[in-house]
Amino acid sequence: MRKIGKLDWAFSGGRIPFESTGEEPKFNSHDKIAVLNTSGETAEIEIFIFYEGREPVGTFEVEIKAQRLRKIRINDLIDPEAVRLDRNYGCYIRSNVPVVIQFSRMHTGQNANAIMGTMAFPAD
Amino acid sequence: MRKIGKLDWAFSGGRIPFESTGEEPKFNSHDKIAVLNTSGETAEIEIFIFYEGREPVGTFEVEIKAQRLRKIRINDLIDPEAVRLDRNYGCYIRSNVPVVIQFSRMHTGQNANAIMGTMAFPAD
Amino acid sequence: MRKIGKLDWAFSGGRIPFESTGEEPKFNSHDKIAVLNTSGETAEIEIFIFYEGREPVGTFEVEIKAQRLRKIRINDLIDPEAVRLDRNYGCYIRSNVPVVIQFSRMHTGQNANAIMGTMAFPAD
Amino acid sequence: MRKIGKLDWAFSGGRIPFESTGEEPKFNSHDKIAVLNTSGETAEIEIFIFYEGREPVGTFEVEIKAQRLRKIRINDLIDPEAVRLDRNYGCYIRSNVPVVIQFSRMHTGQNANAIMGTMAFPAD
Repeated sequence: MRKIGKLDWAFSGGRIPFESTGEEPKFNSHDKIAVLNTSGETAEIEIFIFYEGREPVGTFEVEIKAQRLRKIRINDLIDPEAVRLDRNYGCYIRSNVPVVIQFSRMHTGQNANAIMGTMAFPAD
Repeated sequence: MRKIGKLDWAFSGGRIPFESTGEEPKFNSHDKIAVLNTSGETAEIEIFIFYEGREPVGTFEVEIKAQRLRKIRINDLIDPEAVRLDRNYGCYIRSNVPVVIQFSRMHTGQNANAIMGTMAFPAD
Repeated sequence: MRKIGKLDWAFSGGRIPFESTGEEPKFNSHDKIAVLNTSGETAEIEIFIFYEGREPVGTFEVEIKAQRLRKIRINDLIDPEAVRLDRNYGCYIRSNVPVVIQFSRMHTGQNANAIMGTMAFPAD
Repeated sequence: MRKIGKLDWAFSGGRIPFESTGEEPKFNSHDKIAVLNTSGETAEIEIFIFYEGREPVGTFEVEIKAQRLRKIRINDLIDPEAVRLDRNYGCYIRSNVPVVIQFSRMHTGQNANAIMGTMAFPAD
């Protein structure tokens, strides 16, 4: 099977909320990245977290086995230090083999009826 | 009309939930892919499902007629084997002619107020 | 200002629902495309609608003035014929000048707690 | 670290609603852009807002420090003039260094059960 994806990924709209109304741990609020490694090699990814008012933090290191998916809660990134709750953050991820990365959020802590996010269109 | 789209598509954020509160079958929880084939030929697509803790499964084979749309419930993929419920999965799809593929989800089983997902930005 | 965007756009996950609970016409269910024309020329776009079980319909013709935005309800496309309600559809749009197109949906007719859609990742 | 992202970004599906039911200012309705600058230089971005029935407005100028994230409420763009509420708008953003931009919305003013938006697929 072909190697599918890219080596470098990023998103800018992250935020892990404090409050949560869902059943633990399944429905509590979270930010997650889902990494798909279709290749025959282990993917070694390096994650860097960027904030508004302080220095970026990294390198968080995660492995995704060959031909496997892995979902990673941003809440679970604690080494070299835990990602700050209730702070806006961005994320840059690089991999040694091509992977496909999707960012998702579940927010159960308040009654906003609809929240949506989309990457803007990169025009060059 | 031009052939619009790409031959290879993937997403990493799949999960078919067990529980559902909606009217059956219209509003029960599902993951779907919608495949648009604007070309004058039948599109023959091959779908591969990737999991966290077991080998990938495939090939699921589906045809989309010339100049037609087709929505495919991931729940309905049962040959060579049914896609596991309540398990995270990723998906790689290849086609013999260019197609456009969108992934969508309806989740009716719990009261999270908002869930959103977006592809991260592929930066290389 | 630079011309921003592309000439050809498509999406596959369309569906205009019958039922609606919102205040008319502001909050009734709809599918919309928003077309941004940053160029100094009028954009003349041609829209083609694709279905699951019948021939595609087109050409729907729409103009977007120079340096203007235009939101177009798919419900309002009636010439050469109205887009079918409660049917899955896909859409291909071509323009004579580069434009940026976003597809959005408001669904007020039932109590699904969350619906999300995203383009899959085009990997070639 | 590599410079990640693009110089030019756009989206077409903007709308800042009048009404809001959430706690102020955290949960009131808003449109936001989140800009990630992974580079070692200050990013100077220029924002242009496009409307349906009037001339575009700009240049709104914003800086994002080196290796920082910045979330910008569209509501807070007031110089050279405030962005109109309850009007559809599009947005073009250019930067002097590569950045990654995500557009997000929270809508707390009415009871639509689900709103989703996605960029269409740019096919050329």
